Amino acid sequence: MKKLAIIGASGSIGTQTLEVLKKEEQWSLVGVSVHRNIEKLKEIILVFNPKLVVVTNEESIQEAKEMLKEINYTGEVDFLEEGLIRLATMKEVDMVVTSLVGMVGLKPTVEAIKSGKDIALANKETLVAAGEIVMNLAKEYGVRILPVDSEHSAIFQSLQGSQPSEVKNLILTASGGPFLGRTREDLKKVTREMALKHPNWVMGPKITVDSSTLMNKGLEVIEARWLFDVNYDNIKVYVHPESVIHSMVEFQDNSVIAQLGAPDMRLPIQYALNYPHRHKAVANPLDLLAIKNLTFLKPDVETFRALELAYRAGKRGGLQSAVMNSANEEAVALFLEEKISYLNIVDMVEKAMDYFRDAGEITLDKVFEIDPLVRTFVREKNKEV
Amino acid sequence: MKKLAIIGASGSIGTQTLEVLKKEEQWSLVGVSVHRNIEKLKEIILVFNPKLVVVTNEESIQEAKEMLKEINYTGEVDFLEEGLIRLATMKEVDMVVTSLVGMVGLKPTVEAIKSGKDIALANKETLVAAGEIVMNLAKEYGVRILPVDSEHSAIFQSLQGSQPSEVKNLILTASGGPFLGRTREDLKKVTREMALKHPNWVMGPKITVDSSTLMNKGLEVIEARWLFDVNYDNIKVYVHPESVIHSMVEFQDNSVIAQLGAPDMRLPIQYALNYPHRHKAVANPLDLLAIKNLTFLKPDVETFRALELAYRAGKRGGLQSAVMNSANEEAVALFLEEKISYLNIVDMVEKAMDYFRDAGEITLDKVFEIDPLVRTFVREKNKEV
Repeated sequence: MKKLAIIGASGSIGTQTLEVLKKEEQWSLVGVSVHRNIEKLKEIILVFNPKLVVVTNEESIQEAKEMLKEINYTGEVDFLEEGLIRLATMKEVDMVVTSLVGMVGLKPTVEAIKSGKDIALANKETLVAAGEIVMNLAKEYGVRILPVDSEHSAIFQSLQGSQPSEVKNLILTASGGPFLGRTREDLKKVTREMALKHPNWVMGPKITVDSSTLMNKGLEVIEARWLFDVNYDNIKVYVHPESVIHSMVEFQDNSVIAQLGAPDMRLPIQYALNYPHRHKAVANPLDLLAIKNLTFLKPDVETFRALELAYRAGKRGGLQSAVMNSANEEAVALFLEEKISYLNIVDMVEKAMDYFRDAGEITLDKVFEIDPLVRTFVREKNKEV
Repeated sequence: MKKLAIIGASGSIGTQTLEVLKKEEQWSLVGVSVHRNIEKLKEIILVFNPKLVVVTNEESIQEAKEMLKEINYTGEVDFLEEGLIRLATMKEVDMVVTSLVGMVGLKPTVEAIKSGKDIALANKETLVAAGEIVMNLAKEYGVRILPVDSEHSAIFQSLQGSQPSEVKNLILTASGGPFLGRTREDLKKVTREMALKHPNWVMGPKITVDSSTLMNKGLEVIEARWLFDVNYDNIKVYVHPESVIHSMVEFQDNSVIAQLGAPDMRLPIQYALNYPHRHKAVANPLDLLAIKNLTFLKPDVETFRALELAYRAGKRGGLQSAVMNSANEEAVALFLEEKISYLNIVDMVEKAMDYFRDAGEITLDKVFEIDPLVRTFVREKNKEV
């Protein structure tokens, strides 16, 4: 039996990973973390009885302790970042699913890799902030980084049986989000509520806002650059509102291989868990005859500037992607707190990128050092406005 | 340097194979056949100087001899079926491209397999008439059957890196042909000229008519059944008028892998020649942003009965597919001679299938024996009408 740990088990990907695990009996769940969803943690323990549970939100520790006592949980408990690291490096674990949101996932991912764990990566910010470092570590420690994002899983699936030298372009598809076809003028009026409605996918709030600005696609471009070692000029984005083709690979012979499926994250999760094998379906089937039409459009990078910013950050290199990511995390948080306007999110990101342009070469320490500086910059900049 | 022979070098696939060979310098063309296009044969000799040339049409032998003398061709010459067999079994040949049309390709394909040659198969009638026998021979002699049909190449490409047990359905796409959306009433008026205009592909007359009746898709269903060892119930056909997705594989985890490309046969030819590698493009790139829309429809099997007939023949087994194929070849010939109506093609095929229903188990000898009987039946039936 193979042993799994899930970092961020109560979120959207975490929950769907648990659904997959119910049918994939060759995996045993030995450890989980949640941030503050203690009710969900209780459910998980009652079904899977993991050996270690971790709660990362300081204010939820008391509630967690009471719940664990109430259900007579006999396993181990730990808290905060220290607990996450312990979870990520548990001796018996074979694979860690990193399904938390934001660059808070970076440290446990790095520690998991150093402990020789394969990673099912749903935490794209890790590769955006420190892709080069993380991929080099994975190579050094001989571990697999298996993509869980639907787009990257699609590319990974489309690459099977090919050689890296045969790849011409990666084509990431984007739903276009809820504001597809709108102008910059329209975007001025976007509220928190409007940004939290995604047409095809049900996801957490941060990624839903990122999808609406196309920053999510920008993060994915950077993620793809590091996962698949392809130049930015060879990563394209097509808007594909139906979200049926999850992404494509164009090879040097001009053949294009694509992966299609229902919008169901359980499929890429299951694929990552079983790779290189495919097991019986947990996800829903695709009914192309019911969908009937697939459309493809060039993204409007004038209106959705975040996508262009991500290419810019990626091409500038060094710490720029980390800066972009931290600024975006903070700006989205401010927007969700209704402290800045929708268009301000991307403006803030651009200002931070320019302010921290000369931050120098990337090291893991520097990524962690610059993160609070960027967040403070964004909070301060906001007060100025 | 690897050595290639092309059976049927002057047709559509043959000509495009020659174009690919001009860029694929690791292949040397050592033998070709043409039926009656002596002008084309001359061109081929002047460019590739193959060691053996074969002319299969009796009436073209004199013309060929004069041409060969005129250009001082110093290689070997042979004629008719005997020549084809010699070409297919040339000692130095590594791979044979079977790009002639009709079940006349069966015998040389069988002989090539028995001589240990890999086959780049563009002659679908071979597998329709005797798929089980041909695939078993290929296994016995340890040779590869590499599909050149765009649909089967797409499936073959989509299967890379997977296990046969993981496949749920093969989904063949069909352009729908020039009469997509028409009723049976409309089809009564179809002339030879109308049937010879295909919306997406430029092909020979027989396959163009087959595409318009959907018999071509029926032949491809049977071809897929044998190439990929999948049951008929797991082979689906979607009408996809844009011919961008060339076919798909649905796996048991409900993931669908598809191959897309411009409608350019040089791509599957090049893939077959270089498999499992992909070389720099000979075919044109796909521009999905220019095409913008892809549509998918259920085929209208009431109007286009040939598709249903092919499933029926395939499921009946034995000699039924061979009978269907011979009847179709003869009926299409009669239609192209303007001796029968368009709807009569499929009616004739059905009558032949029913008449020869009890022809028994399939053997290679029986496939060859029944062929002239079916053709005579169709010609005689026509006189009755």
